[in-house]
Amino acid sequence: DKSGGETKEEAEAVLALCADRGYICHADSESWRRGVSSGFGPLGAELKRNLLEKWWDSVVSSRAHVFGISSPSCSPDKTGSGHVKKIDTKQIMQILEQPELSREQIIKQVNSFLRTSQALRTNFFQGALEQFVPSSELVNRKLPFGLAEHGLCFRGPSCGWPDTVTKTSLVWFCSPRTSSQWLDFWARQRLQWWKKFALSSSDFSSRDVPGEDLHLPASRGVKIMYNFPWGPESLEILWSRGDTELLQAHNGARSKLHCRDGQKSVPHVITVTANMDQGVMAFLFNSLQQQKKEGSKRKLHQKVLKLHPVLTPIKVALDIGRGSTMELRQVCEGLLQELLDSKISVWPGYLETMPMSLEQLNARYDEMGVLFTTVINENTLENGLLRVRSRDTTVRETMHISEIKNFLSGYVSAAQHT
Amino acid sequence: DKSGGETKEEAEAVLALCADRGYICHADSESWRRGVSSGFGPLGAELKRNLLEKWWDSVVSSRAHVFGISSPSCSPDKTGSGHVKKIDTKQIMQILEQPELSREQIIKQVNSFLRTSQALRTNFFQGALEQFVPSSELVNRKLPFGLAEHGLCFRGPSCGWPDTVTKTSLVWFCSPRTSSQWLDFWARQRLQWWKKFALSSSDFSSRDVPGEDLHLPASRGVKIMYNFPWGPESLEILWSRGDTELLQAHNGARSKLHCRDGQKSVPHVITVTANMDQGVMAFLFNSLQQQKKEGSKRKLHQKVLKLHPVLTPIKVALDIGRGSTMELRQVCEGLLQELLDSKISVWPGYLETMPMSLEQLNARYDEMGVLFTTVINENTLENGLLRVRSRDTTVRETMHISEIKNFLSGYVSAAQHT
Repeated sequence: DKSGGETKEEAEAVLALCADRGYICHADSESWRRGVSSGFGPLGAELKRNLLEKWWDSVVSSRAHVFGISSPSCSPDKTGSGHVKKIDTKQIMQILEQPELSREQIIKQVNSFLRTSQALRTNFFQGALEQFVPSSELVNRKLPFGLAEHGLCFRGPSCGWPDTVTKTSLVWFCSPRTSSQWLDFWARQRLQWWKKFALSSSDFSSRDVPGEDLHLPASRGVKIMYNFPWGPESLEILWSRGDTELLQAHNGARSKLHCRDGQKSVPHVITVTANMDQGVMAFLFNSLQQQKKEGSKRKLHQKVLKLHPVLTPIKVALDIGRGSTMELRQVCEGLLQELLDSKISVWPGYLETMPMSLEQLNARYDEMGVLFTTVINENTLENGLLRVRSRDTTVRETMHISEIKNFLSGYVSAAQHT
Repeated sequence: DKSGGETKEEAEAVLALCADRGYICHADSESWRRGVSSGFGPLGAELKRNLLEKWWDSVVSSRAHVFGISSPSCSPDKTGSGHVKKIDTKQIMQILEQPELSREQIIKQVNSFLRTSQALRTNFFQGALEQFVPSSELVNRKLPFGLAEHGLCFRGPSCGWPDTVTKTSLVWFCSPRTSSQWLDFWARQRLQWWKKFALSSSDFSSRDVPGEDLHLPASRGVKIMYNFPWGPESLEILWSRGDTELLQAHNGARSKLHCRDGQKSVPHVITVTANMDQGVMAFLFNSLQQQKKEGSKRKLHQKVLKLHPVLTPIKVALDIGRGSTMELRQVCEGLLQELLDSKISVWPGYLETMPMSLEQLNARYDEMGVLFTTVINENTLENGLLRVRSRDTTVRETMHISEIKNFLSGYVSAAQHT
């Protein structure tokens, strides 16, 4: 087992690389350790985008009975229990600046202003409960069905946790007698989803929440965990919550909530909530492979960010080798546009003017997680052939420039379906 | 010209229909009139999703020199000028509850707490300016390039405006001598984009911001307008802003900001910002067509929501006609899953148990903007044929059940490229 110091060093090394390669903004492991800072660089933003898109495909688009919704990010604080609020500070300052107000009047007015201010959402659960009735009418009150959403949620300041987090949420409504099976179904589905994109899938696991950690009204809970260098952290939590909160949100109007699945009942609710900022970090930690480089003169420990082909932000880098720079760049520009039009993300490496050996170039792209690298040179101008190097096998294949678009689309699409 | 009352009635009628059909949550035209409430129903959420995806394709994915970024939604208020803030109200209450504090001490402590609280972002501009340096290194300091983002932004409370809005943002960095041409380029590109998805494209227009409405440092501005029933409102604004704010964000460190396009310079900045909640409303108002129904016994004014095929949330509805309900439903379930797997959004109309005439059904789907409607009946079980009705032509075509997936994909994809 590793010591705390080694663990910290290992984590710092991964974070430093992610910061250098445009995945994250800061490399301070303390702030990244629990939950995640919301500062992603361009590559991290694209990775998060890809991850959210795959989540949406898996939970919403590919299912007939899950609807995407869009709930307000701040709303009147009906219960008075919200404490993370959106405040126009000018308005409080105006109260404080009134010389005629006594100490007690100031306290009273500020308190009343705070109470009536808009609460920032901390989750998507309330929004889904509020949209339950019109949504149930869409499916003719037939169970089960789900309401899904992803986006920003807020938190109060607390040591080490970020102020905002990108969450995904599925709120699933089902008949009381099937709720336990559905919790199992979704727990299995979610774990499979995380593992599908993993390089080392054993780092993802699920565990039942022990009885002493359950808070009413939850009757069961399952956590999807990722084994970070500093220990396991939960990425996604599933709760079986009964009907209590649904009834509360609709003032106990049972008849309004009745749905059918064989027989009439007020549905039971299962929530499936993930922290996708932390999900991004899990895949970054999971994908970084250190390998001894063979055939190299100096023995180097090369780092390769082996992100799953569908997740990795850049599918191909275009570079130029020997030959007329002007002509080669023109070929690159044309190929680049063709690839972008087919929604293949490209790195315009040919713009680089710093001289770099092919070895250095490959090392850099491997650290960025670039799936394939191509070099276009005077040969390409002559006979249309170019070499394509794979990040994962390091094998170089020669193909015709007209084939590369279909090769890349086919590769990514095949990776998606295995 | 219409009177104010007629205008209001017309707007209310569109909003009522949008609320009935699951596009928006509330049908109060006062709150929707200027900017837009953030409450979308399931169909509105999907429409907004489609719109944001098309924006991303057009501005980011199809361009080599635009990077998606992800800036923090709340951040320390460095300048002390932010006034929309995220506050943990408990912490202010703790100050107010201390009996030993005098009136002046309370004022001082609350003021200091407010000043140091996190500011909520009101736009994506600051985030892009802060990511300028690392991003410029990605492109080897070559101009032009852009940083793009979409998501939630916040506003202080003000009469009629919503608290949050979904914005899209492109911040474009270019050489000083090309900034005016680039403003023209983007204004043209953006207007074309809006018109591309319009039913009646003349309702979208652009206009230069007159000199007296320009605020420093902006030297030019262009607005993309939509002609709502109550008058034109701006959907998107482009500003040519010079280098002032970029220099400010980096404390005037010119050498750090130098980029090349022919010669070295501190880039000029163009911002392109749209309100996509209002964009959704523009397309809803733009797409609703009232037509006299021909061949009908009663003369009805039928409403059809002719949203662009790529934007409309539901591409096809599956219904059942005469025949064994059990068998027909099985066929529907199979077809539904096949379509969903090809990312074609389907409405499971066959779940409906309320008896409805074909005329009523079509009227409802037309109001929902459903692009095609199919009815599967005993004929389909016999020979595999089904009838597909087009929302836009009302023509019914007979095709084999095995053809419908490719027909729909082909139709939407063709609409995308015209």
